[in-house]
Formats: sequence, C-alpha cells, structure tokens
Amino acid sequence: MDLLIGEMEHGVHNNLCDVAGVTVGHSTIDEGSSHTGVTVVMPCPENPFLHPLTAGCSVFNGFGKTTGLIQVEELGTLETPIALTNTLNVGKVHDAMVGYMLERCKKDNIKLRSVNPVVCECNDSGLNDIALRAVEEKHVRQAIETASVDFAQGAVGAGRGTRCYGLKGGIGSSSRIFSLDGRTFTVGALVQSNYGASRDLRLACLPEGLSACDLGSIILILATDLPVDARQMKRITKRASVAMARLGSYIGHGSGEIAIGFTTARAKKVSEHFLIKETVEEASLNLAFRAVGEACEEAIVQSMLHAKRDRTLGGETVHSLLEYMEKKDT
Amino acid sequence: MDLLIGEMEHGVHNNLCDVAGVTVGHSTIDEGSSHTGVTVVMPCPENPFLHPLTAGCSVFNGFGKTTGLIQVEELGTLETPIALTNTLNVGKVHDAMVGYMLERCKKDNIKLRSVNPVVCECNDSGLNDIALRAVEEKHVRQAIETASVDFAQGAVGAGRGTRCYGLKGGIGSSSRIFSLDGRTFTVGALVQSNYGASRDLRLACLPEGLSACDLGSIILILATDLPVDARQMKRITKRASVAMARLGSYIGHGSGEIAIGFTTARAKKVSEHFLIKETVEEASLNLAFRAVGEACEEAIVQSMLHAKRDRTLGGETVHSLLEYMEKKDT
Amino acid sequence: MDLLIGEMEHGVHNNLCDVAGVTVGHSTIDEGSSHTGVTVVMPCPENPFLHPLTAGCSVFNGFGKTTGLIQVEELGTLETPIALTNTLNVGKVHDAMVGYMLERCKKDNIKLRSVNPVVCECNDSGLNDIALRAVEEKHVRQAIETASVDFAQGAVGAGRGTRCYGLKGGIGSSSRIFSLDGRTFTVGALVQSNYGASRDLRLACLPEGLSACDLGSIILILATDLPVDARQMKRITKRASVAMARLGSYIGHGSGEIAIGFTTARAKKVSEHFLIKETVEEASLNLAFRAVGEACEEAIVQSMLHAKRDRTLGGETVHSLLEYMEKKDT
Amino acid sequence: MDLLIGEMEHGVHNNLCDVAGVTVGHSTIDEGSSHTGVTVVMPCPENPFLHPLTAGCSVFNGFGKTTGLIQVEELGTLETPIALTNTLNVGKVHDAMVGYMLERCKKDNIKLRSVNPVVCECNDSGLNDIALRAVEEKHVRQAIETASVDFAQGAVGAGRGTRCYGLKGGIGSSSRIFSLDGRTFTVGALVQSNYGASRDLRLACLPEGLSACDLGSIILILATDLPVDARQMKRITKRASVAMARLGSYIGHGSGEIAIGFTTARAKKVSEHFLIKETVEEASLNLAFRAVGEACEEAIVQSMLHAKRDRTLGGETVHSLLEYMEKKDT
Repeated sequence: MDLLIGEMEHGVHNNLCDVAGVTVGHSTIDEGSSHTGVTVVMPCPENPFLHPLTAGCSVFNGFGKTTGLIQVEELGTLETPIALTNTLNVGKVHDAMVGYMLERCKKDNIKLRSVNPVVCECNDSGLNDIALRAVEEKHVRQAIETASVDFAQGAVGAGRGTRCYGLKGGIGSSSRIFSLDGRTFTVGALVQSNYGASRDLRLACLPEGLSACDLGSIILILATDLPVDARQMKRITKRASVAMARLGSYIGHGSGEIAIGFTTARAKKVSEHFLIKETVEEASLNLAFRAVGEACEEAIVQSMLHAKRDRTLGGETVHSLLEYMEKKDT
Repeated sequence: MDLLIGEMEHGVHNNLCDVAGVTVGHSTIDEGSSHTGVTVVMPCPENPFLHPLTAGCSVFNGFGKTTGLIQVEELGTLETPIALTNTLNVGKVHDAMVGYMLERCKKDNIKLRSVNPVVCECNDSGLNDIALRAVEEKHVRQAIETASVDFAQGAVGAGRGTRCYGLKGGIGSSSRIFSLDGRTFTVGALVQSNYGASRDLRLACLPEGLSACDLGSIILILATDLPVDARQMKRITKRASVAMARLGSYIGHGSGEIAIGFTTARAKKVSEHFLIKETVEEASLNLAFRAVGEACEEAIVQSMLHAKRDRTLGGETVHSLLEYMEKKDT
Repeated sequence: MDLLIGEMEHGVHNNLCDVAGVTVGHSTIDEGSSHTGVTVVMPCPENPFLHPLTAGCSVFNGFGKTTGLIQVEELGTLETPIALTNTLNVGKVHDAMVGYMLERCKKDNIKLRSVNPVVCECNDSGLNDIALRAVEEKHVRQAIETASVDFAQGAVGAGRGTRCYGLKGGIGSSSRIFSLDGRTFTVGALVQSNYGASRDLRLACLPEGLSACDLGSIILILATDLPVDARQMKRITKRASVAMARLGSYIGHGSGEIAIGFTTARAKKVSEHFLIKETVEEASLNLAFRAVGEACEEAIVQSMLHAKRDRTLGGETVHSLLEYMEKKDT
Repeated sequence: MDLLIGEMEHGVHNNLCDVAGVTVGHSTIDEGSSHTGVTVVMPCPENPFLHPLTAGCSVFNGFGKTTGLIQVEELGTLETPIALTNTLNVGKVHDAMVGYMLERCKKDNIKLRSVNPVVCECNDSGLNDIALRAVEEKHVRQAIETASVDFAQGAVGAGRGTRCYGLKGGIGSSSRIFSLDGRTFTVGALVQSNYGASRDLRLACLPEGLSACDLGSIILILATDLPVDARQMKRITKRASVAMARLGSYIGHGSGEIAIGFTTARAKKVSEHFLIKETVEEASLNLAFRAVGEACEEAIVQSMLHAKRDRTLGGETVHSLLEYMEKKDT
C-alpha cells in the first residue's frame, strides 16, 4: 500500500536496506503456543568486530532490557549485528550472538576475547507463551544466514507476536533519501512495534471504540550512509521519538522505547595512531532529522499494514490495520 | 477559543496556575526596536530557597542557554522562581534573580551565599533588536510583583517577540486534571513557543505555502501537585516532547527544546536527618504522562491563538494563527 | 589481615552482608583451561521481583557489557539478584537468571512475563579460556543456593580468573557503619577486581618493576540500609569511583568500570496508588559518600589480599599482593 | 617548588598555556570586604564564535551553577572564552561575556544574535563578601585583555577567595606532554580549587588536627592539541575526577565538581556541507587520560602552593600549604 507520510522521497526498497551494505533476516517460530522469533540487522558485509561502525542510541523510556548500549554510548561504535527478539529470550540470543561472533572472528583468524552484542526486545506475551523462551541459537543463525535486502515485514521474526496501538504490529521498515553537495544519502528505519493504546492512534481511518491499553515497547533501528560522528549519530537517533508522538503516543510508563543507529560511512586510518573522518556540517543534519521522523513514522504504519489479523493465546482477536484501511477505501 | 485537544478535562483557569500556589507574571518591553520581555513562574507562595520544590528536567535538544539545570538534575530541587527571557538577556536576568533572592532571604533573616537561578530563553531576534539586551532588573521585579493566576498569554513577557511555525508565537498555557484514590490532581503547562517551520505545522486550518524555517526553540514549564520524587518528575518532563512532534516538528538542529517541571507536594521532616515523602505508584504516572502531552500541545496552540499579527524588524509580516482559524470558521 | 583504610568503623563481617538481608554465593569453575565462575548477590530474602529494591548505578567507563542498567536507571529499582561472571558468559548467565526468576515467581503464584536481570562481567581471558563459556545454568543455581553472609573472597566465583594492578585480583568486600539520629546504618561494598596497571598501584609495599598493563574492568556492588530514593542511590554509587583513583588508576580506556547500588529500606504502600517513603536529608549523604570511598578502596585491596599467586594460560606468573605484604612485614 | 606527581613530562610553562594558542588572564578584586575576581581562559587567538573548538564536559557532582554546558554537550563545541568567578557573580559575568562577544563579532562584521557563554564558579564566601557581587564588566574585560601564557597562580582572579582542603586554595595549573607517531601533544589543566576537608588531604607533609569541612567546589579546565572528537573530549574530561580522589576527596555532597575541556585541533571544511577531521585512535587516548590525572593533581597542589596564608571575613586564619611544606623541609 502506498503511504504518503512526509515530503521526502523514499529509496528503491523503501526499507532499511536502501542503505548500501545493510541486510535483514528473520527466523519466525510458530510451534505450539510459541509465536515469536528473531530478526537480525546485518550492518555491513564485513566482520563488524574488525570494522566497527560509528553508532549512537537514545533511550526514550527505559522500561526495557536491550543489551550493549553502555558500550555503544561510551565508544560510539557497533561491533556486532543487532538482534531483536522477545523479552525473555534476550539471554539466549545474546549467547548465540557471542557464538556467531567467535566463529566469524575465527574465520578471520582473530581469537575473540570480548564482544558487545546488541540485543533488543519487545514483550510479545499476549500472542506468545514467552516463558518457553523458544528462540534458540539455530534461529539466530537462520536469521543471519537468510539476511537480504528484500526482507519480509509484518508478523515475522521478532515481530511475530507484537501488537501496536491494540492492532497487530510487527516488523516495519521505510527509508528516505536526500542530497547534499550533489551526493545522495539515505536514512533507513526498521521498527519492532509493540506499543500504544488503540484509542490514541492518530490515523484517520480508525473506528471509535478500540480499547487495548499501552503495555508495550518499540525498538527503532536506524541506518544511514551519511558521514557522521557518534555524537551526531546520537542526535539522529533522538529524532525517532517524533514518530510515536505523531501517531498519538504519550510514551507510556511501561513502554521500552529505544532507538539505535549506525552509519556505514567509516573513518580511514592514516597512521598508527590517527584516523581521518568525514563528517557532515552540523546544521545539515536537519535533512537527516526530517528523514528519521518520516521514515520511522512510516515504518510503524508499515509494521501494522503488513500484519494480518491474529489472535492472542487467550483467544481475543487482534485486528489488522489493513481491515480498517480497506473499509475506508470502499 | 475552545480547543479540543486530547480527552482529559482542564482545570478552572486552563493554565499553569490551576496547580495551587503557582502564579505567573510578565513584563513586556516595547521601546524603539526592543520588543521583548521577561516572564516569571513563581512556584509557591513561600521562599523556595527555604522550601525547595522537588523538580526535574529534560533537554530534548540542547542548542539553548538555560541556566541552573546542572543542580536541578543533581539535587532534584528548584530553589528559585523560573524566569524566561530572550537569549542575550540570560546574564542580566540571572543577576536580577540573584538580587531578588538575596533580598527575599534577608527578609527571612537568611544570609544567602549561594543560589541557583533557573533562567530559560528563546531567541526573539526577528522581532526584537536582541543585541540591546533590553531586559533590566526592574523588569524582572515587575514580573515577580505582578504575578497572578490570571496571567496574559500570547505576545507578552518573554513571548513578546517569539515566532512558532512561522506564525506569531509567545506564551501559552493549559492544564489537565485527573483523579487517583478519590483525590484530584492537576498538571499545568506553560510554554514560550519559538520553534517550527510553517510547512510542518499539523493543524487542519492552515493554507499551503507558508514557508518560514525552523530556527527557534521552545521552553516548557510543567507544574503539578501530584506527589512525585525527582526521578518521577524527570519522567514527567520527558513527555513534554510529544507535543511538538504531534504538531509536526522533527526537533530541528537549531532548536533549544527544554522542559522543566516541579511538584508543589513536599516531603515532611520527621527528625534531624530524615524526611517522609509521599510518592505516586510508578504505573499511575501514566495519567500524568497523558496530561503532559495534552496540556503542552494545547499550550503551544494557545500561545499562537493569543498572539496577534505582527511584523519583523525587517518589515516582514508575521501572521497570527487566529487569522487562519477565523477564515476556516467562515 | 587487618587493613587501616579510612577513618570509619566496619561492620561485623566487614563485607557486603553487614547490610541485613544481603547474602552472596559463588560457583567456581576449574576444569581444563576453564578457570572462571559466577558470583551472585542476593539483595533480600524476599522475591525481589515482587518486592523491588530502590537502586541506582553509575558508569565510570562504559567499555563493558553489564545488562539491565537501562531499566535500573529509568525506574530506580532492582528486581533480580545481581550476577557477576566473565565477559562471554553474560548471555548464558542472563538466561539462567530468567529461568531462576520464572521458577521463583511460579512458587509465588506469579506468571512472570518480563524481568530485568542485572548481569555484570569482567574479562578473565588471561587465566581462563573465555571462549569456552564454561558458566552454565547449574553454576548460577549453585551460587544462588549457597549464598550466605560469610562468603569467600579472592580467586573465587566471578573473581576466579581476574587480575588487578597486574597482581591476582578477584572478589573482595568490606563495609562501613555510621550513625544518624541514634540509628546505625551500614554501607557494604563488593568488587570483582580486574583493572589497573601494576606500575600505577599506590600501595607502599610494592616493588618497582612490575609492568602488567591495564586492560581490565571493575564491577562495584554497593548495598545499604540507609533510606534513600533512586536519585540519592545514584549519587552514592558515583562515589565508588574514588576508590580506584586513590589506588592509582586513571580510568583506562579499556576498563569497564561500573557501580550498582541498592538499599534494603523500602517504601510502604498507603493506598492503591500511593506510597510513603523515608529518605535521608540530602546533606547527610556525606556519611554514606565517605563510607563508599573507604569500603570500596578496602574491598579492592581485600580482593587482592585474598587471592593467591596464580598462572596465566600462557604460563606467566600472576603474583599475589600478599607476597609483597609479607616481604614488607619481615 | 618542584613537584614530582606522576611519571610524564610537563611542558615548557607547566601550565594550561603549553597548549599553543591558549592564554589566561585574571582580574583580582581587593576592595573593602570584597576579595574575589574573575579568571578568563582564552581558548584560541581567533574569534571562537566564528571558529568553534571541539569541546566536552563532565559533571562529577552537580551542586554548581556553571552555565553553557547544555549546548557544549549537544553540539560538542565551545564558542566563547571560559570565565571563572564566584557563585553570585555568574549572571554579571555572563552578561559581560555576551557584551564582549557582541563587540568582537562586530569587529568581524558579524551581527551576533545568539551566543553561549561558559561561566564557571566556586563559592568564596568565607573570604569574600559574596553578596556584594563585586565582579563587574570592567573586570571581565581586564582579565581578557591581560591574558597571557605566563599567568599568575594562587590567590588571584577567580581563586582570590577560595579554599582547598581547609588551606588557602586558588588558581593552579600544570601540563603534561606525550608523543604519538612522532608528534608531540600536550594536555594542560587549570583549576579553581575550593573543595575538600583538611583531614582528608593525602599529602605526607600535613599535621594532624586540621579540621575545616568540605563545602566547596572545583572547576577543572582542560586544553589539548590532540585531535579528538567531542565524545573523546568528554572521555578525557571524565579523567579529571581522579585528581581529587587521589588527594583524598570523596566528592562531597556540597561540592560542585565540573570539568570542561577543549582541543585546539580543528576540522577542515572540504565542501559546503562536509568537513574532514583527524581523530586519535581510541586506545591511544590512554596517554591523554594519564596526562589528565597527573596534570589535574599537580594543578590542585600548585593552586595551594602558590597561595599565601590568609584570613576569613570572620578573622579565622587560613593556612597555606607552603607553611607545612617548609616545616617539613627543615
């Protein structure tokens, strides 16, 4: 479905992978009462531990269990893929990421002794029997191995069991492009949407009387090829917050709202102890800021548009946004 | 004009002073090319240095010159009135606040040796010859002395020369009330609005083609009588950000966006070294969070609705939102 | 060995468990090239998920992988025991803590859907083949089950393989007591010491010429029974930093230096939505601040004094501080 | 007096101005009961508003009134000289800095509309009748105009009335140099020392029985020519904390302890919207970290060594550290 959110153009795929080098993979679990999964964002083709990416993050509401942000904040770098999963699987997925990085570094003849996996989560316990912790190492590997630029959206991977504004949520993505000095840059967003009360959603198509409450969270992953330093990347991630507010959220107490961003533009080593980095002029960040707001807002709506109607473990129907959009079209 | 923003009821005055004990005063300057002023929020009838209020703050974008927040953050207290003015008058107003506090403490037989004035600012240099630094001690005193619960809104005091979404901005205020355990609580908001590009404003009444750019700032002052500790107060201030986003902002690079909040509920001393404090259950903050979003959004719109059409020093017309609202009504 | 660090008295055990209700357990692994383990701090006899403790934290240098601090920071509470282990075992230990909490909550008839394990780490890869990730769920359970007030110090549990100032480090602990309004309060410290270059250690007994470099980390756990709110607890944790500096550290780039603290003093519920909390007068925190500095400094020295001479996987001798103290005594 | 603190070499002047381009000026006031002043750090010969310097800061304890840090934190830049003064003169000095910057920009044909003065303070109310706010615009101008590389230390400028560890404190400075890739770099420190209880001072020469208490603050200004970005500069400023701890402080509740640093190494513009920046490899920061610890510790001791015995307004003697050093030498 074609959405008109904002004024900027989107990239070819209108997803996170419009930033060259980024791929996304899912592993979706539907076994018994387990309806959950894992989504992995591969930030670059190279081993990120050997070639860390400049990164930043913003915690809008810290009722969440994301790992790895202390080091991202201190060093301004990302050294692993980013994994998204359910709340109680953070430990297993963390360990699987350590295993993957050990193996990958071994291939590169590096004996890995320390690594900082970034693992994010939302609580999908309405649709998923979360206590089973169904995500295993094999799922993480499958997500990594199947990562591509044309990844599925909606109720897949880490979005399998999430809800957004009382409707079915999931994984959504979008991108925006803009030019500076004749060069084209991209900002991509990917969300795991699991927040918001239905009565707060600000979209014209919705009927009155939806009343699910706000107990969830949202993870927003941002990628760009704009050359920025870590402080600038942090400023960029901060703008992700406008998307939820525009769609009606007031940042609920129980919602873990966290944005993590990285740039694929890298510094170049010029001597043993020194690097040269290109960075964008501060005021020109406004284009990236606007792009983040638009791409994140659209990514959230896309996460809902791609997700079909579902049912909670307790048997309650979880409607799809698509149902209301279609009604309106008629 | 009656606005319908959100779902909660507002207080009697629908302004910051619906929180009992809070008053607001202005001093407006229109002399030569000086069109500026000062607005003072008096947080309580008592001397706040002797009876500090629990306080918190959030910096959404730190391109701003507000003073005093380091100590508010560390100690979680407010010990002076809050003054708002223009960017280049922060020093003079800071000094005037020191002078006022010295005098007030002297009356209370306290020899003041240290005090932490909270002075906030927006850049009104389009309508005001800011380099003249027209705000003097007498204006600060006048604002303090005339503080009341029925204060003016629009292009007055620190809002005299500000612009918002390319329209005339200024001081705006609103409040929301809610109940917990049979007790009624109030959240009040007051803004000095000076941010946003006109093309981004999300209000149905606006015509196409407005094109002022986003170079400004916004200060949001929150008051409540809900008993909260400093960490909770900080969480409350964080929710002020949703108001700007809902109205279309993406948090521009050049915008100093800062929220400061305090509660009039106090701890009680029970022995030389110990206090007893009432605090609200964490999850119940959701009511205050919702109230902040609604009150701040309405306060911003009110700041524009109360401000008449004006002219920049360069002779450019600055339209009033009211012009567009009236057109729409016809 | 009796140390004279600071001027305050220590508690009965001179360890973290002088704070009533706190216990500590270890599981130490010595199998093949695995020389590592896990240490668990049990903050209270009750289920901490049902009875969260007021908590705070400070990151002095964020080159570390500790989990759970985002939520500790936002909510100011600790809802699980605190586990310490080696860097690459964080995921497995996190998952084991989730398993333990699921089981414990089940006993309390709670269906746990979300929990925030706090897992800390140091890198013991010199003495331990860290890539083997030897710590399993059973070790975590063993540490929990054997927790007591008279726990071992030195090269045990999570301290099995760590080094400090080029000497053998490990787990160390100490406490300080003080009085306010006739009531006695305790501050306890427990460290996992793994930082510092030998040439920087400021202790009179050391010989010249030690030259291990600073690649490590330090975790500092603080407990108290002083009634404080989360902001105050955070201020208390910040003072842990003075201990490392006093012993000669300059906070190395590669050192993950993190302090986490909690108080066993709790708020009381007085109605559905409100609590009453006792808190100490702000200026009286100075006694706790002094206590933290002294207890942490002593805990670090104790971690070295309790650890015997050892050997790295590469065969290099890791001396014990005790060797030098004994030489000096002669 | 020659001090042996640390292992690194100091620069030619052993002060902040060993970083090329940096100068320091004082204006000292001794009139009636006013014993105070202002010290200004000029970060570069150029107009810093037109050529901002990469900057960072760390607040160790926020019981202080320093202005300007919100913007330093957000943008990572310093755009004015740094002024130090007494607590109640912050407003006047802030306004004087605005005046100076307006004038300086006018000379450079810039119409200044917004500027972010960094003004720091300590409370010198023991020796100075602080309520008189004796520092006027002329003093600020005098400090700026007399700035040089061979500035005085001790009881001068903003250090005129301060005390440190119960002894006379003031302005102190020191520097350290180191090499990377055959290039020599400098870290300089300047402190306004006003903290610490005498019984806590860890220097061998002191007698027992000194007992002034800890009510003060310390401002630490760092300069370097090492090419770093703002995040790295912030990391560097964080290491200033080790100096106070090494000298015995536990970071008292009432002490405003704030470090601000800048680098004279600049980015180069390569096109309208892009810059190129050299930055040091992260791990190589260790040399700067060590330098900061040593230089700050020495700067504090120098501030005391350069200050002569004095008297409080109440007539109490404030001893000089020099008295004890001399006794010891005999």
